[in-house]
Amino acid sequence: MTKSTEFAKLFVDILAADLDGQSDEGIPLGISNRHIHLSELDIVQLFGQGYQLTPLKELSQPGQYACKETVLIAGAKGAIEKVRVLGPARVETQVEILAGDCFKLGVKAPVRQSGEIDQTPGLTIIGSKGTIILKRGTIIAQRHIHMTRSDAKHYGLADQQEVSLRLVGGRGGVLENVVVRVSDSFRLECHLDTEEANAMGLSSKSRVYIN
Amino acid sequence: MTKSTEFAKLFVDILAADLDGQSDEGIPLGISNRHIHLSELDIVQLFGQGYQLTPLKELSQPGQYACKETVLIAGAKGAIEKVRVLGPARVETQVEILAGDCFKLGVKAPVRQSGEIDQTPGLTIIGSKGTIILKRGTIIAQRHIHMTRSDAKHYGLADQQEVSLRLVGGRGGVLENVVVRVSDSFRLECHLDTEEANAMGLSSKSRVYIN
Repeated sequence: MTKSTEFAKLFVDILAADLDGQSDEGIPLGISNRHIHLSELDIVQLFGQGYQLTPLKELSQPGQYACKETVLIAGAKGAIEKVRVLGPARVETQVEILAGDCFKLGVKAPVRQSGEIDQTPGLTIIGSKGTIILKRGTIIAQRHIHMTRSDAKHYGLADQQEVSLRLVGGRGGVLENVVVRVSDSFRLECHLDTEEANAMGLSSKSRVYIN
Repeated sequence: MTKSTEFAKLFVDILAADLDGQSDEGIPLGISNRHIHLSELDIVQLFGQGYQLTPLKELSQPGQYACKETVLIAGAKGAIEKVRVLGPARVETQVEILAGDCFKLGVKAPVRQSGEIDQTPGLTIIGSKGTIILKRGTIIAQRHIHMTRSDAKHYGLADQQEVSLRLVGGRGGVLENVVVRVSDSFRLECHLDTEEANAMGLSSKSRVYIN
């Protein structure tokens, strides 16, 4: 066999073995559109003194919820209306936008993990009772998988490890640079944003497989 | 060596060989936003009798150009303004939208090659002088590579063959189901849509590599 043929055969064998091991499960997919997490202080600035966010829908990660409230976000080039607020309040406000939003807003957001907002650009945020000029906190969320310690053990992975995902279908392929985040407060779920899901032909019913 | 180790070694060897062979070139990338190609008849319906499209900017494929004209496209759920018309006129009108637009418009467009519009949904198209109710022609463009016969020979590929692309970077990965289209009227270029490019962290300056 040539090296290439040998490679192809091994690839098929290993892929088949991988699929065998995962075919009965896969990882549930959560698809995120642009959204914002607010600090307690910013909730007051945007919606008024003593304001409490109104939970609208529980999200799959325990304790997280989408709120009735939305805000307008704006940069030098444009604005986006009705950006959903997610609760509960966080220590620092963070806006998670799509790569395509960077052009609309005129802001160069880096791809970052949630919470890693050092040296990220700000934005103007407008709520029903006020406006804040955010100094930093605008990111494109790095694709990631939430898992418990038990899941991590099952997959042989550690917190902060990067893996690649195999996606099957008419727009199939492999997504690399998917960071694993391990905590017993999580539920097993892969998070992609709408552009990533659309590019790969995925829906919220899709399952993804670690490569 | 275990099978997995052997696989990993071969993978690295072959990848290195591939990169060596392609490192000085790669394939230029063209990123398409939603757009529309119009038939002669539909140009008249939308812009008036005897109307000629106004070329604004040459595109990289020979003879193709973006026009000054834009249209509004609408479905049952919503409308999108300022959709760019591309020239010259085609035999049949075709709207190429993003997967994300399907939700906004309320239309289920399939992923198709340009021209393959049998059993695709229609849309309402509004121009400065009229409206057409398109019966069919709404697609999400299948990712593809335009190449000449000489390029095809160089890569060892045939018209209509599907290949996968290796994309390097902080949002790296592999895109499968990339169809090769061969004609001496083409110029070597890979076409992805904005969602695909954004998902993989690519810009119009990026180069892509056949896997």
